[in-house]
Amino acid sequence: MVENEVIESIRKRASHARQEGVRLGIGDDAAVVKPLPSGCDSLLTTDQIIENTHFLQSSHPPDALGWKCLARGLSDIAAMGGKPLHFLLSLGLPEWVFANGWLRQFLSEMFRLAGSTGTALVGGDVARAERFTAHVTVTGSVPAGTVLRRDKARLGNVVYVSGDLGGSVLGLERLQSLTKTQDDPAIERHLRPRPRLDLGRYLRKAGRATAAIDLSDGLSTDARRVAEASRIGIEIDESAVPRFAGAAVEQALHGGEEYELLFTARPSTPMPSSWRGVRLTPIGTVVARQGVFLTSSGNSRPLKPQGFRHF
Amino acid sequence: MVENEVIESIRKRASHARQEGVRLGIGDDAAVVKPLPSGCDSLLTTDQIIENTHFLQSSHPPDALGWKCLARGLSDIAAMGGKPLHFLLSLGLPEWVFANGWLRQFLSEMFRLAGSTGTALVGGDVARAERFTAHVTVTGSVPAGTVLRRDKARLGNVVYVSGDLGGSVLGLERLQSLTKTQDDPAIERHLRPRPRLDLGRYLRKAGRATAAIDLSDGLSTDARRVAEASRIGIEIDESAVPRFAGAAVEQALHGGEEYELLFTARPSTPMPSSWRGVRLTPIGTVVARQGVFLTSSGNSRPLKPQGFRHF
Repeated sequence: MVENEVIESIRKRASHARQEGVRLGIGDDAAVVKPLPSGCDSLLTTDQIIENTHFLQSSHPPDALGWKCLARGLSDIAAMGGKPLHFLLSLGLPEWVFANGWLRQFLSEMFRLAGSTGTALVGGDVARAERFTAHVTVTGSVPAGTVLRRDKARLGNVVYVSGDLGGSVLGLERLQSLTKTQDDPAIERHLRPRPRLDLGRYLRKAGRATAAIDLSDGLSTDARRVAEASRIGIEIDESAVPRFAGAAVEQALHGGEEYELLFTARPSTPMPSSWRGVRLTPIGTVVARQGVFLTSSGNSRPLKPQGFRHF
Repeated sequence: MVENEVIESIRKRASHARQEGVRLGIGDDAAVVKPLPSGCDSLLTTDQIIENTHFLQSSHPPDALGWKCLARGLSDIAAMGGKPLHFLLSLGLPEWVFANGWLRQFLSEMFRLAGSTGTALVGGDVARAERFTAHVTVTGSVPAGTVLRRDKARLGNVVYVSGDLGGSVLGLERLQSLTKTQDDPAIERHLRPRPRLDLGRYLRKAGRATAAIDLSDGLSTDARRVAEASRIGIEIDESAVPRFAGAAVEQALHGGEEYELLFTARPSTPMPSSWRGVRLTPIGTVVARQGVFLTSSGNSRPLKPQGFRHF
């Protein structure tokens, strides 16, 4: 399988998908897409997956990697309250990806997620490389002036998180251990995170949330991003943080690649306890003193961003 | 210099640039840009530069690489007759790029080209990597229904090329030889190709050109792309192909990374011999028999695509 065959296979998959708004897809110097409906702004985000930085060939199955590669971009669109529209895919391909259907599985699962979220591939680039790299740029739309940002959290807001935390890093641990079992929900969580697209749009509507971010690098790191951007502080109640079954507190606080949403809302905004099957949990409040703080048993201490170390 | 410092330095450069149409640039989960003026379509293109595939650390200066990385995307926009608007930049960074100001020079020159073409950085991603990689996604606009495509060449059209060919591959040869000199125009041509943005828009207006492509992989390869997409043939007169000073015929026919435009026009369309200092040369005609053919001294033979082998 050489570059041209890869491109042909990608082109075929793309042509079978819904191509809403696409005037000219793969095959020319650039893709041509129709203008957004009036009153909509465009969203643009890009993410990369690099061999030996974000994944190891030995422990990450190709199907899950293809899924995650696109899921990361979709999660960014979700955190802005947007609707995904199109994506571009660039691949750097070492020889080994052509063996055992690795690349085929990678692409199949990426296109499965693209299809289920209505995101159409419109272009990209394929080249040989010594390490596998995949880059995805996702575009989206959002009604002008309603986008969810990370810098709009306000004093007195309630801080919420969707889903349960710590499952992804727990799944990664189990994936790398010798004790991994089939159908482990934590492993599934690590390998196939669900971008919270519906939830993002729900929170954006009628100003339900004031600010939002997706949890890509861990609660402690991403909460700090909201606090710094909004120039406020966030106090998190340790006992309120919803934990994935089997996850330790530290995993819930610092584990990355959750792709849940962390968001803030006015205390007067009614918030359901779950939405379309995803739990929404109040875990803290926005305070005046800057920083992120963790309270437990009545004591408050700074919550240091320990981020996520990829594998 | 760690990831955060790189991001901060990029953010500073971006904030000094004109940010037309940008509602929210670097710093959130996705960029937010205003809708295009009514009647305009969006253009999207992505390109990658990978260490040891597209360049060697030893022979390619970082400033030229930063320039070329963005120039490739801009050249795609030019070939569609579009106006560039925004770009996203993803970097995979090995340790060595932090030495001797390598990364700083790479970024400076990229931002110089961005500034001179009015292209604003709105987002991206930075990660560590074992090999240097840079990915650029460029967006643009074009009045709906007027975009230049590669599949609209028609029987009897005249085939034109802009500029002189073969200079880039000649410059690469000299760059890798021991005889390279300062200010060699061929080397400059290889290192700092000029995307033909003004020319692309000129050709798009009033349907002056029927089809266009940018010469990224060499005349023989890119002419074939136009022929195949348009389901026609192209006959090129070897003696008419404008050669860069010092370039051999083979270099003009097959050398890649020219970033000139190959385009077709109706014979009735008046075409100036140059436009804003860039030569426009008729080099052949669109014929019925499919393929690309080279005529010289009255003989015609198929011109095989010999593409461009990166370094």
